[in-house]
Parts: sequence; structure tokens; C-alpha cells
Amino acid sequence: MTETVVGKLIETLAGGAPVFSAWVGMNEPAVAEALAREAFDAVILDMQHGALDFAGACQSILAVALAGLPAIVRTPVGEFATASRLIDAGAAGVIAPMINSRADAEAFAAFAKFPPLGERSWGPRAALPLSGLDTQAYLAGANRLTQAIAMIETREALAALDDILAVDGVDGVFIGPADLSIALSDGAKWDPRGAAVIEAAGHVVARARAHGKYAGMFCYDGADAHAMAALGFRLCSIGSDGAMLRAAARGELAAARGTPAGGPAGGPKTY
Amino acid sequence: MTETVVGKLIETLAGGAPVFSAWVGMNEPAVAEALAREAFDAVILDMQHGALDFAGACQSILAVALAGLPAIVRTPVGEFATASRLIDAGAAGVIAPMINSRADAEAFAAFAKFPPLGERSWGPRAALPLSGLDTQAYLAGANRLTQAIAMIETREALAALDDILAVDGVDGVFIGPADLSIALSDGAKWDPRGAAVIEAAGHVVARARAHGKYAGMFCYDGADAHAMAALGFRLCSIGSDGAMLRAAARGELAAARGTPAGGPAGGPKTY
Amino acid sequence: MTETVVGKLIETLAGGAPVFSAWVGMNEPAVAEALAREAFDAVILDMQHGALDFAGACQSILAVALAGLPAIVRTPVGEFATASRLIDAGAAGVIAPMINSRADAEAFAAFAKFPPLGERSWGPRAALPLSGLDTQAYLAGANRLTQAIAMIETREALAALDDILAVDGVDGVFIGPADLSIALSDGAKWDPRGAAVIEAAGHVVARARAHGKYAGMFCYDGADAHAMAALGFRLCSIGSDGAMLRAAARGELAAARGTPAGGPAGGPKTY
Amino acid sequence: MTETVVGKLIETLAGGAPVFSAWVGMNEPAVAEALAREAFDAVILDMQHGALDFAGACQSILAVALAGLPAIVRTPVGEFATASRLIDAGAAGVIAPMINSRADAEAFAAFAKFPPLGERSWGPRAALPLSGLDTQAYLAGANRLTQAIAMIETREALAALDDILAVDGVDGVFIGPADLSIALSDGAKWDPRGAAVIEAAGHVVARARAHGKYAGMFCYDGADAHAMAALGFRLCSIGSDGAMLRAAARGELAAARGTPAGGPAGGPKTY
Amino acid sequence: MTETVVGKLIETLAGGAPVFSAWVGMNEPAVAEALAREAFDAVILDMQHGALDFAGACQSILAVALAGLPAIVRTPVGEFATASRLIDAGAAGVIAPMINSRADAEAFAAFAKFPPLGERSWGPRAALPLSGLDTQAYLAGANRLTQAIAMIETREALAALDDILAVDGVDGVFIGPADLSIALSDGAKWDPRGAAVIEAAGHVVARARAHGKYAGMFCYDGADAHAMAALGFRLCSIGSDGAMLRAAARGELAAARGTPAGGPAGGPKTY
Amino acid sequence: MTETVVGKLIETLAGGAPVFSAWVGMNEPAVAEALAREAFDAVILDMQHGALDFAGACQSILAVALAGLPAIVRTPVGEFATASRLIDAGAAGVIAPMINSRADAEAFAAFAKFPPLGERSWGPRAALPLSGLDTQAYLAGANRLTQAIAMIETREALAALDDILAVDGVDGVFIGPADLSIALSDGAKWDPRGAAVIEAAGHVVARARAHGKYAGMFCYDGADAHAMAALGFRLCSIGSDGAMLRAAARGELAAARGTPAGGPAGGPKTY
Ligand SMILES: [Mg+2]
Ligand SMILES: [Mg+2]
Ligand SMILES: [Mg+2]
Ligand SMILES: [Mg+2]
Ligand SMILES: [Mg+2]
Ligand SMILES: [Mg+2]
Repeated sequence: MTETVVGKLIETLAGGAPVFSAWVGMNEPAVAEALAREAFDAVILDMQHGALDFAGACQSILAVALAGLPAIVRTPVGEFATASRLIDAGAAGVIAPMINSRADAEAFAAFAKFPPLGERSWGPRAALPLSGLDTQAYLAGANRLTQAIAMIETREALAALDDILAVDGVDGVFIGPADLSIALSDGAKWDPRGAAVIEAAGHVVARARAHGKYAGMFCYDGADAHAMAALGFRLCSIGSDGAMLRAAARGELAAARGTPAGGPAGGPKTY
Repeated sequence: MTETVVGKLIETLAGGAPVFSAWVGMNEPAVAEALAREAFDAVILDMQHGALDFAGACQSILAVALAGLPAIVRTPVGEFATASRLIDAGAAGVIAPMINSRADAEAFAAFAKFPPLGERSWGPRAALPLSGLDTQAYLAGANRLTQAIAMIETREALAALDDILAVDGVDGVFIGPADLSIALSDGAKWDPRGAAVIEAAGHVVARARAHGKYAGMFCYDGADAHAMAALGFRLCSIGSDGAMLRAAARGELAAARGTPAGGPAGGPKTY
Repeated sequence: MTETVVGKLIETLAGGAPVFSAWVGMNEPAVAEALAREAFDAVILDMQHGALDFAGACQSILAVALAGLPAIVRTPVGEFATASRLIDAGAAGVIAPMINSRADAEAFAAFAKFPPLGERSWGPRAALPLSGLDTQAYLAGANRLTQAIAMIETREALAALDDILAVDGVDGVFIGPADLSIALSDGAKWDPRGAAVIEAAGHVVARARAHGKYAGMFCYDGADAHAMAALGFRLCSIGSDGAMLRAAARGELAAARGTPAGGPAGGPKTY
Repeated sequence: MTETVVGKLIETLAGGAPVFSAWVGMNEPAVAEALAREAFDAVILDMQHGALDFAGACQSILAVALAGLPAIVRTPVGEFATASRLIDAGAAGVIAPMINSRADAEAFAAFAKFPPLGERSWGPRAALPLSGLDTQAYLAGANRLTQAIAMIETREALAALDDILAVDGVDGVFIGPADLSIALSDGAKWDPRGAAVIEAAGHVVARARAHGKYAGMFCYDGADAHAMAALGFRLCSIGSDGAMLRAAARGELAAARGTPAGGPAGGPKTY
Repeated sequence: MTETVVGKLIETLAGGAPVFSAWVGMNEPAVAEALAREAFDAVILDMQHGALDFAGACQSILAVALAGLPAIVRTPVGEFATASRLIDAGAAGVIAPMINSRADAEAFAAFAKFPPLGERSWGPRAALPLSGLDTQAYLAGANRLTQAIAMIETREALAALDDILAVDGVDGVFIGPADLSIALSDGAKWDPRGAAVIEAAGHVVARARAHGKYAGMFCYDGADAHAMAALGFRLCSIGSDGAMLRAAARGELAAARGTPAGGPAGGPKTY
Repeated sequence: MTETVVGKLIETLAGGAPVFSAWVGMNEPAVAEALAREAFDAVILDMQHGALDFAGACQSILAVALAGLPAIVRTPVGEFATASRLIDAGAAGVIAPMINSRADAEAFAAFAKFPPLGERSWGPRAALPLSGLDTQAYLAGANRLTQAIAMIETREALAALDDILAVDGVDGVFIGPADLSIALSDGAKWDPRGAAVIEAAGHVVARARAHGKYAGMFCYDGADAHAMAALGFRLCSIGSDGAMLRAAARGELAAARGTPAGGPAGGPKTY
């Protein structure tokens, strides 16, 4: 039954095992659907650095639902009204980048949660049928059903981490390791798995746990996701559609030409 | 002549009779055009809780114009720059949700009106041909031609109602009854025609009239719109594309199967 | 489970009760999905006289699947390669207009059925996941799963009816009553429920039954579908998206203005 | 009133003055609308060599109607079912390329005209509102309202010219001068204004007139259209959207840089 | 320089090394572009069994050109007019499925080649800039530049192989192994690498070579393409976008969960 | 080589000659590509008053790159997150309208520049391949490669001009003459080449030069751009797609009808 895909995300999170999610940057529902037909727990659609626009994200949420999975959407920086619209469109969660302060976190939560927790406006256009709930039940349950996830990816965010985690309407945090590495090096280098990020990562996992919440991490491939889950991250994305497709192509081309395979690590680093 | 569709909205408002408007949430100009071919006074396109994106709203404005009607667009919360772009695209009015204070109202008006009333930027791309005016006449007339309508749907908004109505560039107010019922019940229930909303509605109509402005209301069907017009609302939307389509289908299916008809009230409440 | 929506059509047909189907002419998956959430047995997407193009039909098939229903697509006249592509896209059936001879019927069947029945080419892109079958099982079952339905809507077609019904790969026939009335009146009038059509209808039902196949009919509303089912038609479409939407709007507008309702019969006859 | 745009084409043709038409190859309604706001008599949308697809052509027909003009669509070679769909979509005429024989002409006419003249199927989705007629009046008038225009652009076509012109459902002919020059030179050169084409042109004009029909010509710019109208062509297209845009840009760039202007003739010859 | 991407295909073919091509079934230029940024020799866009429509194929050709590669498009069965339009759109080659006879091959060639070889109509909209040639040079060179490739995938096609290869305007042939296996087993099984197909493959390679032309083969992955190139196939596609993406995801998910990897062979067989 | 189109803008600026740019308001990559094939130095895509949406702007950036030119995008007022996304999409520059204060300028720069200059988030999706750089080189070079250009178009902006120019992450300023004329006349008139604007223009050029930065101007045609370049403006746009197309059409129509040409100045003033 696709009718309860919205609820699957909190179910999986409640189970305690890490949530492994696909990551989609292409503005095409067929890409999201193809990935959703594999054994991921969720699919993350990226409107910040990916090519998805609002209409494409809405269609992709439905394509992911058709395959039986919940979708999470990362919005552009500060576009909290878009977060509301995506929850209406059936997203089981939204990830807000660059949440650097309690004020940022509160503004985000205000758009993600109904009163009294926030100020989300009523209009669950596509979410209602995907939730399997009726009107009043959806109103009562939506604040729990749809996850609001704040990205931690600057010095300011690390400094305000407890403040951000203390905001009621924020359900979890998610590290943006590329930006964090750039921030921690004052713009000097892209180093998402350098010591500075890894040290911060441990801190974020610990503080999230202390607040009874979860931490997630952008991961570059399956092995990386395995390692990050071992560090305590409970929402781990795995690579991206474009990177996986190009890595797979490199491998097959090497086989076709009978040359040594260039590994998945060889492509451009657009995340 | 479609060339003056932009001006039809203020003409109808000036006439004093209630403006009955269709309400469109689907991102497809043919839906808007089909409704515009019936005897509505205007068509409202919903970008807040509907599926419309910017490109879809622009195309729908033209489809509505082709059928001879003015279009009004509801923008997402706080997206006032989008309001400007939609007026450029030929919208005869914009509805801004969640206007909760004089500051909100002023920010909205700044984007909806040219100097000296506001700070709207010049660029009436599609509006100019739909207005039937030349450059200087459009500059002189646009502030009156294109209506800026502020939604009243929280306790804060009710408290600031006179302040909001006092802002020069705000032409009317519009009640969001679902949100207002949720706000007035502190998140406890969706009850858009409960006593609390109806009491507030009377107050809003009275205050709008006192300011020489008009009040509008989201209405759930024709009978509801009739009742709300009787309360003094002058801009009454009627149902929504999706709700009407599904209600009609329910009725026809019942006739096909020879079973008792489930009425229009039976569907999901996504507004 | 949406995974078996392709199979639902033959299941319902096998049950013996009439299949009541929605009819969609708008090129927007949300329209198809909205109708699919009501209690229809199937949704017909019209590429002949509707606005759907190939991409829109593909998306609409998935939107209908999300709501749990099988989709049938009517193709443009003679575009049998498109029929193949739509079956690949997950259509549970295709309706081919203007099948006027055994040769027409065979050409259609060649594109709709795998060898040895026809010459359909392998590539069930979206159909495979929607069928719930694996590769060999789909190859073995597809000719039964996906229905090929020939339209009878000219004098030639009536004359060749037994020839058409005798073609193995044709599963059923479907009357186009507007065209049939025009043909039978030599272009003089649109009269889809006139005596000439009704007489032909009875003949088509009888001959289909004699061949162990079924007959369908385009119906103008629920009452009409009820009547046609009583005549023995087993696939009855009900109105169209645009006609239902406009009829509903007319009714609600009448209620809003307090005027007598114009019934559903009042709109333009584009079918 | 846009409601009668479909009828404007035959009105202008009846007036006797040459019909000067814009020519659009870009798949964007705003291009068609921009041209339709200038003083053309019609806008031709090119699906054969232009980028328009079916959905884009449908939207462009409406955009042209909004500006008050009739649209004509050139279909791909042999796609007569598409011609029918475009007439349903509101086209006032269709141009079929590569009509080389009476059989080609009859097949085209069969899809463009209702019985008894042809076999066009009923379903004037968007055409009905744009025609301003009701159901029976549209059925009675459509064969005259919507023009079927056959392209003459090969040796075979010239040889069969009287046969083609004799087909009842063919209203006019239209020369494709680039293809005709290639055909007449056996593939040796693109020479659309060479002596061979001009000689054939005179013949086509004369034969069309003898049959009481009209001849049209693809023209490369305004001066060319003026000259061709003087030869007796009554439907003259003028340049193309892309060529005009690039020529205008070349002129403005020359002015900006203070260099001598390269004239409109300098661009690539994609027609 | 992207301006000569059209010419790259014949250059690579002339070099004698096998042409390894990506295979794209998703209607999204970003997918084609991502693959084109890897070291393929060409990208094949599939309109027959893939989701691409005409507009998507046109955009994808340009996206592939941006990355510096030539694009080849497979059209739906019998849609030769579409082949012409895609060559106009910049395709360096077209693959026509189900060419079963000399008549099929001649009809295909007529649409792919200019006179005197065929009857392609002039209008190289996007092809002209991508070819780097001027008008007359393009007319003179296009028949060589743009490859027409006929699919051999039935018993009839095998029987007519020499006839098909003898058609001047056919440049190469391409085996559809899934369909061929179904045909050779009279519909009994999908077995694209079974003995019957492999035996036929050798014959096709030999006959193509005897005619001074080349043979291609749909290949399921890199190792398969390597093996087929060793058999003498000179145009080998490698997997498909969807299959590669899903296989890559399966591998990464296995790594993430620490489970044994399911290999690329595990997915659904939609080709 | 298209791979370095992003870098071309700063190269041309460094050369000292004025940058003449096309201006595109239509949401169609083919329009942008057509203009990019003429001898402009850049193409500006307008999301503020033009019809472009995010997806259209992304596609247009690639279409412009295919023709070898850098693209600059003007965003809607205050949508700085969109500016970031467009730089990720390959824009060589972004123009932010209505920058009226140092705070506005700093907020804009924060989204346009990586740390330590700003807070742009890592994710150069399409920009990386168009830049021709690898990961670390792009991080090091992007702040210089991608230009952030602030619009000066109000009294407030003129008053804060030195403050705005002093912001490190702002590379240049650009005058919006229509808005500036409206602002300077307190809403009384559209007069983009009136004395008040021209006087301010000289001041802006001088102050930009004093800060070692450049000034740009919206220009109405080539002659206007020539004149503005003579005043010291180094980034001059020329007309707009829509205005050039309509002016060209007017000219050709006049030639066709043999009437005196209405000049380019005759159209509607939507800029
Ligand atoms: Mg980040
Ligand atoms: Mg509300
Ligand atoms: Mg029919
Ligand atoms: Mg031609
Ligand atoms: Mg095949
Ligand atoms: Mg401005």
C-alpha cells in the first residue's frame, strides 16, 4: 500500500537501525523512482545544489511513493515557505541547509510544524492521501509524521548546536561535510572527511543523542555510509544519482575496452 | 476583447456585487481555462497550497485571459518578490497568506505597488498587453488596477487587523478559515465554519468596510459562498478544482452504479 | 499494493460486472490522479481528442497507478507504434480509434501483442514493475494482461465487425458514438444517442458476446453509463474531466448566486 | 473577441489581399504570442523542421489566439492524425509537407475534413470555444473554417499538381522552395529563388487559380514576401522567428560596436 | 569545439575501433549529459522503449553535444518522419527498429537522406550549427555525416538481410537481441545471449562486412560489449542509464549495510 | 571548447573593452542559444521581469554554453539563495536587483561567494564541468570567476553607492534605468534616458571606477549601448529578445506590405 509512505520514515527511524537514503539531484521523477525501487529506506531530493525545482520535486515525491518509499527534500537556503509546500506535496521530511542559530531553527520549525508548535498553514494537498489519515488525524499527527531536519555546516552552527537541538520543532540534524570542511578551513579546502569534520561529527552525534534526537550525514558512497553509521549517524545518504551513474559508466567502459577500471572516486566532486 | 482582462477585477469590485471566483490548485492551464469558461468573475490560482509553480501560474493567467477573465494568484508565505513577478505576468491581483502585522502588510505592498506607494520594479512583461494601456498610462494606473490582498488567518493578524487595513497599498483582506480555526483552537481542530471563525469573520467584514476596503473568504462550495456573501464578503472563492472534480465524479459514479450519491462533502479536506 | 495495477483490469473484466472508467483529456497527471482516487475501475487517458501527449500520458499512467488503478490509453488514429510505447509505459490497455477493417485490426494487434500473436517489441520499461512479474512471466502473460481494444465508429467498421472481432489479438471493441452518428448521418449531425447509434450498439454488443469478447461505449455521464451497462456494454467511460469540472462549476455557481442550476447537459459537446 | 479567431483565416483569404503570416520554429508560446501581437494576418507553427512538439503547438495556438490571430500548423511528413489533433486544438489550418500525389492529398484531406468530405473524427476540444460556434454549427462549418493546405515541393508533386488541386478537401497549396530547388537540381543545390523554382512558382499560382484555390509560398523576409505576393501567392510566410531574431541581433550588435551592419541575409539557412 | 560533434561519429567509425555508446532511456538531458561526460564514443537516446519524447530527445542531443559527443536516436517503429526531425535536431545518427524488408529499409532511407539518395526535406535547424558546415556544404555532406542504421530483430529481417544491406541509404545494421530471441523462439523466451542469437549475430557481422557496412549490437554491460566487439560488432551500446543506476545503487547499498553485493545482473530486464 | 565558458566573462572584462550582452526574457533555451550564436560577449537571462523560472534558466545557461558564451542571470528581488543555485548551474555572473544598502549588498555577496568572502555553499553541479577546473581549483577560483553584480535603481541605492561598492564580494554595479527614472520622479514617469538618469549614470560610472570596479547599464538597442559604452559603462545589455523580435517583425511586415517601416522604437515598453 503506497498510502502510508509518509509514515514509513518515522517508523524506520523508530526502529533504531540507520536509515540509508538515496540522494537525487536530477530534476526527473524517473531517476528518483529508479532508485526508490532499490532497497533504500528513503530518497532525498536535493533542491539546494541539485537541479530539482518545485514541480520536479513534487512529481518525484509521487514517483518515490509509487515505489513505496518516503521522500525527504532538501530546500534552498532559507526557503522555509518552500519547505511547507513540499510537506503539502507529500514529503516525509525536509532538510534545511545552513541553520546557524536558534533563530534560524525556530524560523524553519515555524514553517514545518502546525500550531501550537509552529505556524504551518493548512493545505496537505498530496500529503493527505499519502498519509492514509483523515483530516483531524492528519492535523493531530503531522508534526510527528513529517520530520524537520536542520543542517549543521558552519562554525556558527557548531557553536549554536545545543540551541538548535533544543528547538522543539527540529527533529534531527544533518551534517553538510563539504561546507563544514570549507568553513573550518576558512575557505582553504574541500575536505569532507578530514580530521576537522570527523571530530565535529562525533560531537554532533553525541549532542543529538543527548537531546533525544538523531544526527545524519551526507555520505559519499556505501562504504562511507557504513562507516558513518558506525559513528552513530542514523540518517546516512549514499552518493548521488549523478555520481553513481558516472561511476557505473566508468566501470562498464573499462570492461568494454579491457582497460583497468577507474574507481568511483575518480569523478568530479560536486558535493 | 481580452486586452482588458486585467481591468475587469476592479470593475466588478466597483460594481458592488460579490465577486465569485474559481479556485485552482492544479498546475495546468487547461484546468484554469475550463473554469474560466464558466460564469465566474475571476479565477484564483493557488501557489501556496496548490501545485502551481511560477511557470504554470504564468501560463494559467494567460489561459484565463483567453477566456476573458482576470486571474488572481495566491503566493507562498512571504514570497513578495513572486507577487511582483506575477503582476508582471498579468495577474489582476495577488493574495499574500499569513499577513500578521503592519510590517508584513507594508512589505507586501512594497512589492505590489509602484512608487510612491511601494517599490514595485518596472517590467510589466505580459501585463501591459493584457491591460490595454500604454507605458505611462500603465505606470499611472497599475497601483489601482492590480489588487493586493492580505490574508487574515491567525490571532496576530486579528489583533493587527486595523493596522493591516490602514496600509495604503493593501486593497482588501481575505480570510483563511482553516488556518484561522486551527490558530483559534491552538492547533486542536480544523473547523473552518465553527463559531470562532464565524465570529471573527463578522469582525473582519466590519473593519474592512470601516476602512473603505473589502473582505474576502475561502468558501467550500456554492452554497457556502452564497452564505458568506450574505455576511458581507465581497470576494468569495468557490470550492477548488480538485474538490469539484472529485465530487462530480462521485456523483456520476453513484448514478452509474445505481447507488445513493455521496455528496460533495465527502472528500478529503485539503483546504 | 500498486505493483499489480496492470493486472487489475483483466481481473475486473473477468468478474463480469461493468468496468466504469474515468475519462481524462487534460495533459496533467494530477487530474488523472484525482479521478483515480474515486471509486472508478480504471482511468482512460485520451491522446486522440484530448490534450495528452506521450510524456503526459506516461506520467498520468503512473499517477493513476499510485492511486491503485489501471490506466487505458486511447491513441491517435493509426499510431500503433505509440500503442506499444504506452504498454511499455504501464498502460493496462490501449484503445485504437477508427479500426475499420480486418487489416486495421491486425496492424493494431501486431503492435499490442508479443509473438507469436503479434510483433510487439520487447522493452516493458515501466510495465514490468507495475505488473509485479519477472521477465519470463511478463513475456508469457503480457498478451493477456494488456488489452487491445478496437473502436467501431464508421459504416465500414460495422460492416467489418465480425472480421475485426475475429482477430486474435483484439480483446474487445469500443463504440465512438459521436463519430458513429456523424458517419451514419453522412456528416449531417452529431447525435450520439440517436436511434441509429442505439440500434448499432445493440448489434455490437451481441456480436462481441458471440465472439467471447466484450464491447465498450463512450458514455456522457453516470446515468448514461448506467443505461449503457444495462444494454450489455462492459467497459463504460463516464463523462470527461473537462465536462465534469465545468458542470460542477456551473452547479456551484448557481448555488452561489442563488439562481436555478444549469444542469450538466449545458456545456459544449467536445465529445 | 478571441472567440472567433478560427474564422479569421478564411475571412482574410476571402478578402483577396495576400495573407502575410509569421513563421515560428521555437517550441515556446511566448515567441508565437510576441509575433502575433504584430500586424500579421496569421501565425504558422512549424512542427516539421521547427522544434515544436504537439503540446507546444497546442499552447502556441492558444497564445496566438490570445493576441487575436488564427494559427496554422505545419505537421511532420505524413502525420495526418496529428493534423486532426491540431485542428481539435484550435488550428485554423494545417499544412502537410511532401504531398506528392492524389493519394497523398486524399489521405491528408480524410484527416482534415469531417464526413462526407473526409473522415475526421469528432472531438473539437479547444477549437469549439475558439470558433464561437455550437456543436451542430461547428460540425456544419468546420470543413470550410479549417484550411487543409498541401505542400508542393518535389518533381512528383509538380507532375501531380492538377490531381492534388482536384481533391475536394484540399483548400490550397504551398510551395516549399528549398526542397523544390533541391529536387529540381537532383540534390545538387539549395537555391530557393533560382530560376527553376520561380518558373515552377508561376505554374503553381496559375493552376491553383484555375482550380479556384490559392497558392502560398515560404518567403525569406518581407521584401521577398512582397515580391511573391506580386507573383500571385496569397499565403506568404515571412522569415522565421529564429532568423528574424538573429538578424535583429546582428544589426543591433553592429550599432553597438560601431561597425558596418551585416544584413539579415548573413545567417545560416535552416529553411 | 562542440561545433563538429555531428561529424565525430563517422570519424570514429572510420577509425575502425569499436564505437562504444551509452544508452539512455530517461527523458532528461542531465542523464544524457552525465553519461556523455564519461569516455563513451557516442550516446544513444531511445525513443522506442525509453521514455524520451521528441522534445526531450532534442534537448538531450544538445546536452550530449555540450559534452562533446555525437548523439544517435532510436525512433519508434516506423516513425521515419521523426527520424528526419531528429537529424534536423542534430542527431548524428538514427536507429530504426524492426526493419524487416527492403521496402522498410528504403522507406527509412528516404527520410534519412537528401536527394538523390532519398527524400529528406531541407531544414537542418540545430544540425547546421553542430555540423560546423555552411548551407551548401551541409547539403553535400549530410548523407554521409548522418548515419541511418536499420535494426535486425526478426526472422523476416534475417531472411531479407542482404536486401536491407544493399539499400544505398542504409549505413549499418544493429541487432536487437531481446526481440530476436523472442522471434527465434516464436515468443517462448527472452534469451538475448542464447545460441540462436549468437549464431545469427555472426551471420549479420559477416554480411555487413561483405557489403562494406558495419553491424552493431545492444549490449548488456561492459563485459558483454567487450565480447561483442570481439565478434566484430563495431557499434556496441553498453547497458542503459536505468540499469546502470540501479546496479550501482545495489552495490553501494550492500556496502552500506555490510551485506554481500548483489551484482548488476540482478535487476529487471526491461531491454 | 565550451569547457571554459564560465571563465570567459572575467577574461572579456579584463580586456577592457565593453561587454555587450544579449538580454533574454523568454523561458526557452532556444531563444538564448539563438542569440548566443551571434557575436555577443555574454547573454543575460532575466528571472526578475522575464518569464524564466529556475529550470528554464538552468537549461538556458547550458544552451548558451553550447554556443560558447558565458551566461549571467538576473534573479528576482532578494532571492539570494537562487543566485547561489544559478552559479551552481553554471552562471558566470548574477545580477541582483534593488540593492539599496550595504546590508543588501553584503547579504547578496554572502550567497555569491565562498568563505572567507561569503557563505556560498559547496555544490557546483553544472559549474564545475563548465569551468574546466578541478575541485580545489574551483574552490580557490570561483569567487573571482563568478561575478556578483548589484543593481542601482533607487534614491537609496544612489545614497549608499559607495557603501555598496565597498563590499568586497560585489564585483560591479548595474543601473536599472526604468526603475531609477520612476524613483527619481517619485513615481511620475518612465523616462530611462531622461536627464536625471543620465546624470546619475555618470556618477555611478565614476564611483565604480574609483573603487576599481565596473558599472553596467540596461540599454534599449545597439545605438543606445554604443552611447552608454561611450559614457564608460563596461557591461551593456542590448534590447531584449522580445523587443528585438517584434521590431524585426514590424520591419519585415512593412516591407511585405510596401508601407513605411515603423522603427524599433514603436513597441511596448516592458523594460
Ligand atoms: Mg551544504
Ligand atoms: Mg491559510
Ligand atoms: Mg471517435
Ligand atoms: Mg519542405
Ligand atoms: Mg527491439
Ligand atoms: Mg529594475
